[in-house]
Amino acid sequence: MSLFKNVCKVIFSLSFIAALPQQQVAAAESVAVGTASFYAERFHGRRTASGERYNMHGMTAATGRAHYPLGTLVRVTNLSNQRSVELRVNDRGPLPRGRILDVSKRAATELGFLQAGLARVKVEVLDWGGA
Amino acid sequence: MSLFKNVCKVIFSLSFIAALPQQQVAAAESVAVGTASFYAERFHGRRTASGERYNMHGMTAATGRAHYPLGTLVRVTNLSNQRSVELRVNDRGPLPRGRILDVSKRAATELGFLQAGLARVKVEVLDWGGA
Repeated sequence: MSLFKNVCKVIFSLSFIAALPQQQVAAAESVAVGTASFYAERFHGRRTASGERYNMHGMTAATGRAHYPLGTLVRVTNLSNQRSVELRVNDRGPLPRGRILDVSKRAATELGFLQAGLARVKVEVLDWGGA
Repeated sequence: MSLFKNVCKVIFSLSFIAALPQQQVAAAESVAVGTASFYAERFHGRRTASGERYNMHGMTAATGRAHYPLGTLVRVTNLSNQRSVELRVNDRGPLPRGRILDVSKRAATELGFLQAGLARVKVEVLDWGGA
């Protein structure tokens, strides 16, 4: 029975580990508000943290380390005009304080803040990435 | 005499070509006003157009293609607080409209716009770069 107990313990522990990614990114964290900026055109073609090259015509975003894993799909809404887009996170690293995302040029165009440079946005997670 | 004339013509033409870089960047262009932003920390260590890696602790800036050649030394003054720094241009490529420079994180700190993200600045050329 000791073996059975131990196996149960291991399975029980593993179930926690397996559940961990979802727990870390629980519902409370899945909607956030902050400032978005966008990549200048000159980064077009340069490498991102995911290994992909930045494509200014793509629908992608960079996130701070503590926010979203690479591959996460988010809906971003510009709170000043309610326009929204769906973006895939493909770059990460520290962002300036209060900055939540750095989006592609196309995303900034669709969100209508290319001129302003910065926008107050809401970020909702549609699908959590694994990396 | 025809040979002498032709040689003179060539020298005359060459003198124009040699003078061209300075003429393109004449005194009228040496003070400019626009919006500055700064590189996020995540670009630290990534390549710039000059081949150098971006150093967030350095005193450098990126410029739009039409502005300053690589290697140009500029004095940048934040028009909202009159703080100024001297920066060397080591990256280039299209910047968003109205954006004149993208400066290093340290430069943005010294200029006092790390929180704001953007600042209205005056850019004075101290020394024109060659590239």
